[in-house]
Amino acid sequence: MKASIVGASGYSGLELIRLLLSHPEVEINTIVSPSNAGTNVHDVFPHLTNIQVSQFEALDIEELACESDVIFFATPAGVSGQSAPLLLNKGVPIIDLSGDFRLKNGDLYEKWYNHSSPPEGALTEAVYGLSEYYSEDIKSANLIANPGCYPTATLLGLLPIIQKGWADPSSLIIDGKSGLSGAGRKTSLTAHYSEVNENVSAYKLGKHQHIPEIEQVISNQIGENVNVSFSTHLVPLTRGMMCSMYVNLSHDRSEAEVIELYQSIYKDHPFIRVMPEGNWPSTKGVSGSNYCDIGLSVDPRTNRLTIISVIDNLMKGAAGQAVQNMNLRFGYPETAGLSLSPVFP
Amino acid sequence: MKASIVGASGYSGLELIRLLLSHPEVEINTIVSPSNAGTNVHDVFPHLTNIQVSQFEALDIEELACESDVIFFATPAGVSGQSAPLLLNKGVPIIDLSGDFRLKNGDLYEKWYNHSSPPEGALTEAVYGLSEYYSEDIKSANLIANPGCYPTATLLGLLPIIQKGWADPSSLIIDGKSGLSGAGRKTSLTAHYSEVNENVSAYKLGKHQHIPEIEQVISNQIGENVNVSFSTHLVPLTRGMMCSMYVNLSHDRSEAEVIELYQSIYKDHPFIRVMPEGNWPSTKGVSGSNYCDIGLSVDPRTNRLTIISVIDNLMKGAAGQAVQNMNLRFGYPETAGLSLSPVFP
Amino acid sequence: MKASIVGASGYSGLELIRLLLSHPEVEINTIVSPSNAGTNVHDVFPHLTNIQVSQFEALDIEELACESDVIFFATPAGVSGQSAPLLLNKGVPIIDLSGDFRLKNGDLYEKWYNHSSPPEGALTEAVYGLSEYYSEDIKSANLIANPGCYPTATLLGLLPIIQKGWADPSSLIIDGKSGLSGAGRKTSLTAHYSEVNENVSAYKLGKHQHIPEIEQVISNQIGENVNVSFSTHLVPLTRGMMCSMYVNLSHDRSEAEVIELYQSIYKDHPFIRVMPEGNWPSTKGVSGSNYCDIGLSVDPRTNRLTIISVIDNLMKGAAGQAVQNMNLRFGYPETAGLSLSPVFP
Amino acid sequence: MKASIVGASGYSGLELIRLLLSHPEVEINTIVSPSNAGTNVHDVFPHLTNIQVSQFEALDIEELACESDVIFFATPAGVSGQSAPLLLNKGVPIIDLSGDFRLKNGDLYEKWYNHSSPPEGALTEAVYGLSEYYSEDIKSANLIANPGCYPTATLLGLLPIIQKGWADPSSLIIDGKSGLSGAGRKTSLTAHYSEVNENVSAYKLGKHQHIPEIEQVISNQIGENVNVSFSTHLVPLTRGMMCSMYVNLSHDRSEAEVIELYQSIYKDHPFIRVMPEGNWPSTKGVSGSNYCDIGLSVDPRTNRLTIISVIDNLMKGAAGQAVQNMNLRFGYPETAGLSLSPVFP
Repeated sequence: MKASIVGASGYSGLELIRLLLSHPEVEINTIVSPSNAGTNVHDVFPHLTNIQVSQFEALDIEELACESDVIFFATPAGVSGQSAPLLLNKGVPIIDLSGDFRLKNGDLYEKWYNHSSPPEGALTEAVYGLSEYYSEDIKSANLIANPGCYPTATLLGLLPIIQKGWADPSSLIIDGKSGLSGAGRKTSLTAHYSEVNENVSAYKLGKHQHIPEIEQVISNQIGENVNVSFSTHLVPLTRGMMCSMYVNLSHDRSEAEVIELYQSIYKDHPFIRVMPEGNWPSTKGVSGSNYCDIGLSVDPRTNRLTIISVIDNLMKGAAGQAVQNMNLRFGYPETAGLSLSPVFP
Repeated sequence: MKASIVGASGYSGLELIRLLLSHPEVEINTIVSPSNAGTNVHDVFPHLTNIQVSQFEALDIEELACESDVIFFATPAGVSGQSAPLLLNKGVPIIDLSGDFRLKNGDLYEKWYNHSSPPEGALTEAVYGLSEYYSEDIKSANLIANPGCYPTATLLGLLPIIQKGWADPSSLIIDGKSGLSGAGRKTSLTAHYSEVNENVSAYKLGKHQHIPEIEQVISNQIGENVNVSFSTHLVPLTRGMMCSMYVNLSHDRSEAEVIELYQSIYKDHPFIRVMPEGNWPSTKGVSGSNYCDIGLSVDPRTNRLTIISVIDNLMKGAAGQAVQNMNLRFGYPETAGLSLSPVFP
Repeated sequence: MKASIVGASGYSGLELIRLLLSHPEVEINTIVSPSNAGTNVHDVFPHLTNIQVSQFEALDIEELACESDVIFFATPAGVSGQSAPLLLNKGVPIIDLSGDFRLKNGDLYEKWYNHSSPPEGALTEAVYGLSEYYSEDIKSANLIANPGCYPTATLLGLLPIIQKGWADPSSLIIDGKSGLSGAGRKTSLTAHYSEVNENVSAYKLGKHQHIPEIEQVISNQIGENVNVSFSTHLVPLTRGMMCSMYVNLSHDRSEAEVIELYQSIYKDHPFIRVMPEGNWPSTKGVSGSNYCDIGLSVDPRTNRLTIISVIDNLMKGAAGQAVQNMNLRFGYPETAGLSLSPVFP
Repeated sequence: MKASIVGASGYSGLELIRLLLSHPEVEINTIVSPSNAGTNVHDVFPHLTNIQVSQFEALDIEELACESDVIFFATPAGVSGQSAPLLLNKGVPIIDLSGDFRLKNGDLYEKWYNHSSPPEGALTEAVYGLSEYYSEDIKSANLIANPGCYPTATLLGLLPIIQKGWADPSSLIIDGKSGLSGAGRKTSLTAHYSEVNENVSAYKLGKHQHIPEIEQVISNQIGENVNVSFSTHLVPLTRGMMCSMYVNLSHDRSEAEVIELYQSIYKDHPFIRVMPEGNWPSTKGVSGSNYCDIGLSVDPRTNRLTIISVIDNLMKGAAGQAVQNMNLRFGYPETAGLSLSPVFP
């Protein structure tokens, strides 16, 4: 199968290349990067030498559609929203790693993303690619909106307790911690080594564009509107994301009971690992892999549940889940090309 | 003035040495470290060459009392609880950086610390050394229980809104993030470089010994018992601590209103800096200094207040606050020996 | 094929597990770790869940020989030297990642390693496993002494110019820089996060046990004894090793000429990448992969050649090269299980 | 005394502010940053709150001369070369932290810096500010060319053995390792967190502009022209620099003999610390301080001396030495404002 990647000069695109290079069913066909068009991939990324394609290409919709069996967009907000709709009627499935097709409501998109909304038809057609929850829709989707990294970590950790009705959704507080690769490859003081190293900082409090994405899915799952408290922090590491979540339990529940619930819900999902009682996940435990590790703690003193969910933001939080969705869409084993053990230490 | 330090081979003791070496009123007299007794300070800490004392000493209570005008304990839990009471009637003020005298209730101490409680009389005599809130008591104290690092960051950020009655104390959720120096100098896999670097991990969820300390002070301030949710995380940096706190506001309050409250409360406190609207603190902004920076964000969608409080855990979270308390106790300017700018970058 | 690993609780053993889990021809059969015998692998390494064996075993030479087609030792110095000889006559090929069989001269081993030398017969039988240079011997070896990390980076970078006779071997100076995973999983102040983070330090100057290993191979290749200057430094990262090497050129040589020499020598070696003129390797460019990247710079002002050679110390410097040697020994493609792209960023 | 700083928005300028704020004899008068003129210092650097001046100013030579007793330039190459000569006849001593006045030969400057050379008269007037070696000239200088960071670490480590004639200068090889703050505050991929973290890379091999500076001083000290081999590497830390140096000894010398030589030469220099036999310096041991720590190792097998020299590149390698030179110039104690212990850990 021939895969093309639009926007391959950022970290998510790079990670897609790494994964597809060892995927048993896929060959990378075209790598589009308008800003690097005509230059050698190896000149921009000297570490990549075993790649089949040698040059970055400009974006040519017609050619891309002809030559590809699947097209990934790993572009900044606002790009795929314009280009993907032009490809939709060409019959080539699209997997979009950007935020352009995640929100069903175009106004909400414009408010949180500060870009013009993609056309409504495309928004309607897009399937939200949280693999573990929407696999049936993904299997026949033409446009898959691959989830954001924070929403992935958050929702995988939250949905079991929320769906089961054991917790009060309005009490939800999410404290997110992300490494720097999530901030992308574009240089800025925010990602300048000497400013970020040995530093933890809070950013975009209550203003992060992943908030409406999380709320949309929760509301969709429980059938009512919910507003959540969501804070984001930068921590000094390259890869890795943790969401610590706090929610009031509706009734007394033991830790064992809650863990059992999660284990039963995720028992057939190879990438979700629920930690045994008294164990907490760490980002290093999933680094370089597509796993999401979830730890659960009930505090009987406050009757609150603490949920710790970790992913590699470039893997399950971006390229890994995109490949997982490709596998689902094309009927490959869900783990094809993704059965990598975490890189530890 | 002659200062002695018991337990100077850990990071808090080292930081005390660094501070006292440039304090205008103090000379370091004796450095006690039973495990290193008789060895040269410079052999254990090659970076320390301008120190007046040359050797680590064994612990000799009588001698210590004779030769010191103030005694600092920077020892692990369980040590000062036994030794400090023997010194109390000798008339030398003690500043204890360990947790032994922070909890008024001996049973609570035994439950959370797993050590025998210090004698009740000493617990009663001890004054809790949160400098900005208990300065009057500190001025005449013989035994100052220097606060823990997490409680310091938490309480400085929380008390204004709680005291004012603008927030519901029972809704409190504290998400703490600490660098590795807080874990001390004793080697363990938990602090082994290859395991910790490039890693964020959760630990001691709901079980951290700083929980009862935080609850005791809040309850003391508002006159009712409160249980809080408190989670701790290790982040890969050496110095620095952030507490992100979430609390439900009792009525609608604007961000400006809340910030003004904090600025008015802390206007005469040189080490507390309240950030202007839309600004968030980072640990690097206080690194190496005694500052506590506080950022405030009101989310009108959920009517919750998010408080971000950062300190250098070895400074305001340990040795810096200890020197601040010494200054208060002996009538020196509160900032003597502490007017260091943060080390940035 | 059934592989067993002795000493699987260190980082090299862990990396072997990671690689063998995705090797197309190998199944992990037994994991020996006397100190962890009887405990679950998953309890010690929570990140490992897709592993076939569930428990660490004690060392039982007979059983190990019966059940294995190949046995890896990833043990501290002094262990395989005693155990491997007992296995030698059982007909199961051994690949030893420790230093026990690298030096042909037992006295030299005892002097630099401070352990009793393995029996002379075994030393004689051992084949030095620098894959690119000794592949013919490796193909029929019963005991492969997998090279040290520093010698691997050093020799791959040095041998072409030395063999060709274009440089004066006695002028050799090697400045090595290593990440912390090379120091192993045993805790110590030397690898304690707060001591190592934000720190570069020199260690074991002129005393590193890899010195005689490097000298033995160079002397063997050029037919005369050579002493080299070799310095080692710890740099604050987990994975990665760089050797910067300086050597006097015998005659004027252009940079292009030297690069061409290297490229021609390594053109059929898939894991060695010689950088084009004006490009320098970085450890991140090989991280998680089996590559060795080599950069070359001629300074006409001093007529010296600078060689920069980088590897991932756990991969080409340990487990990766061990798997490469297994591939050579058993006739698999040299890159089987090793065609991983570097993990970047 | 009133000090002005031109170029205070980079890391060297920031460090100067930190130091001058606690200098007993100095008040910061004006902070010039054309790009930030008119904005509040606190808005650009939120961690700076105790600073006397509130705004960045534009560059006004006349005003600057009137209002300052000393002027520091902490500007990029090419700036002070144009501005400082205009100030020279105003009688205000200038301390220039850039490279503009370090090379006596204007052509050499133009070749290595790619900027027009400052006027020859100013080059002649400039005194090279390596405090320990040129203090007599510094005491009466109107224009002090503060040394580069690499030359400072290199020369302090090299000059004793070279001056004494115990080593062959033409055999000199310098392997430099620098943290990222040395690369400045300007954003670039080279200093982008995700590219630099967990990475060691070589850069500017044989092309670094500090090469002619080092050679000029060595040649000046020994009275003959010398070319050195000098390689630079980026290591993942913010502050800190190590130069590992290798030189052939002219005769057999014991390690003790060499160490004694260094200790006797530096015995009256408070910022130079020669390590005892068998001890090696680390960058953390000088972090945040003005110390230069030097370790020495003689390898009798090769008769080479290895010298390890470490500094904090922003302190002894920039702002610290600038303050030291100001102290020398104005007759203050050499250590005024600089008696800070290293920040450890």
